[in-house]
Amino acid sequence: MDVQTWLENRRRMVEEALDRYFPADRHQPATLHRAIRYSLLSGGKRIRPLLTLAAAEAVGGRPTAALPFACAIEMIHTYSLIHDDLPAMDDDRLRRGQPTNHVVFGEATAILAGDALLTDAFRIATEAPALKGIDPKRALRVVHTIAEAAGAFGMVGGQAADMESEGQVVDLARVDFIHVRKTGALLLAAVRAGALVAEATPSALRNLSRYGEFIGLGFQIVDDVLDAEGATEKTGKEGGGDARNQKATYASVLGVPAARQRALELRDDALAALERFGKRAEPLREIARAIVARLGRG
Amino acid sequence: MDVQTWLENRRRMVEEALDRYFPADRHQPATLHRAIRYSLLSGGKRIRPLLTLAAAEAVGGRPTAALPFACAIEMIHTYSLIHDDLPAMDDDRLRRGQPTNHVVFGEATAILAGDALLTDAFRIATEAPALKGIDPKRALRVVHTIAEAAGAFGMVGGQAADMESEGQVVDLARVDFIHVRKTGALLLAAVRAGALVAEATPSALRNLSRYGEFIGLGFQIVDDVLDAEGATEKTGKEGGGDARNQKATYASVLGVPAARQRALELRDDALAALERFGKRAEPLREIARAIVARLGRG
Repeated sequence: MDVQTWLENRRRMVEEALDRYFPADRHQPATLHRAIRYSLLSGGKRIRPLLTLAAAEAVGGRPTAALPFACAIEMIHTYSLIHDDLPAMDDDRLRRGQPTNHVVFGEATAILAGDALLTDAFRIATEAPALKGIDPKRALRVVHTIAEAAGAFGMVGGQAADMESEGQVVDLARVDFIHVRKTGALLLAAVRAGALVAEATPSALRNLSRYGEFIGLGFQIVDDVLDAEGATEKTGKEGGGDARNQKATYASVLGVPAARQRALELRDDALAALERFGKRAEPLREIARAIVARLGRG
Repeated sequence: MDVQTWLENRRRMVEEALDRYFPADRHQPATLHRAIRYSLLSGGKRIRPLLTLAAAEAVGGRPTAALPFACAIEMIHTYSLIHDDLPAMDDDRLRRGQPTNHVVFGEATAILAGDALLTDAFRIATEAPALKGIDPKRALRVVHTIAEAAGAFGMVGGQAADMESEGQVVDLARVDFIHVRKTGALLLAAVRAGALVAEATPSALRNLSRYGEFIGLGFQIVDDVLDAEGATEKTGKEGGGDARNQKATYASVLGVPAARQRALELRDDALAALERFGKRAEPLREIARAIVARLGRG
């Protein structure tokens, strides 16, 4: 299977699974359910679940075994977008080119839809039938990896640190602190979850974790650069929002040209970490290339 | 150990464990951490974690084995209070006699503190050292039980249904739908989690689940009655909030006297479900009595 076919096929696998978890004909309570589907099935790039499946397959695992965890991570990512967009947070009215959840459904329902997605991610990741053939001890470790990456010492902590830093002069260490947690932690967890489900050896897990760290950081730098350049078209968000909110970004601390250069280096580091895996890691390579390709020629 | 000593001892066990999970000297990012501790360590009654420990001990289990799950459930309960109090939700400024989280820390931090508590509940419930001696398959089942009770088809769904019903004429079936989910589900999960960790037999699990359902419902009815009577003192909330928000409550649908009567019957049903457990279930009995005792003489 060539890598584009792989991506297309696996993306469809994720879309169908997410749709099954919150089917259109399930309607109690109706508004909450529609709000969940609105954000969950709105055509995201599905980078995190693809990373989980790709990491599992890079070490010879089955994609179906990794699928519930991949979906759980995408649900957590989706909840974080809904909550980050709220008026009290980043106050964004546009996401992926569409009105944000609270603009359509109101703040209360948006908060609850986020809460539900976050909670049900853990329901799905611990559902007995889905875990058939997976060592339960390993499944617990995967769930723990995801929860740790998403909580106070991971993604939520990063978002909180980001808000605390608004309007302050920040150095590179602080920007790193924020982004390792805010974006990097869940991307890394996505890779590690796939590797763990597929029973990667400790040494393969280390290599994949390095890949995950590099692309986590690279992803954020690309986002910062695109935001600084005001590219609403590429990010689907209103451009310049970071500057408007006086956010700490790589673009503001390093400057755009150096940030672009850093993103390219991180992509190369990520590819280097995959050397031992041969052809099986081609999807992981393609994802790393695609993340940085969003920068265009600059 | 008499039952008051048991309650005091176990409550302290829970307080100390919660304090260890978010220690006072851990300060990154500082505001988030303080907001988490503000709500988590503010002297709640700890009914849910006590139920988990009491259910485990009723079937001969060790309280220490049940403790991480008990704490996870209390963290989920705490997050739900923080989010429910938000201006976009119930807009409450007082909780347990203190200013609510968002009044002290602002809306953004309150949302994030809730998100962190919810996420880290699952981190704590899957932490390897804490699970020593617990069959991992059983641990997964406990985590699944908790997540299911807390998510879209449980607590969050109940809160959403409650908000959808505001200002509408609702019947008893609708009030039941709401409260079975909004309050009952997590109370029942607290009981079931303890029973499952302690490897209760299927038949003992059934009895304890019936106890859990009865007290879940009884708890909500007592809350509704106290709110209708405007008893700020007993609930620590501003009285009459339900009527102000035109909420569907047992007090409004059944009338206060019938609702009081129903709470007493539910307590007796709960006690009847415990008959087989003998002296070991005394803490569970005391909790059922204490819930209804809040009604006073009426």
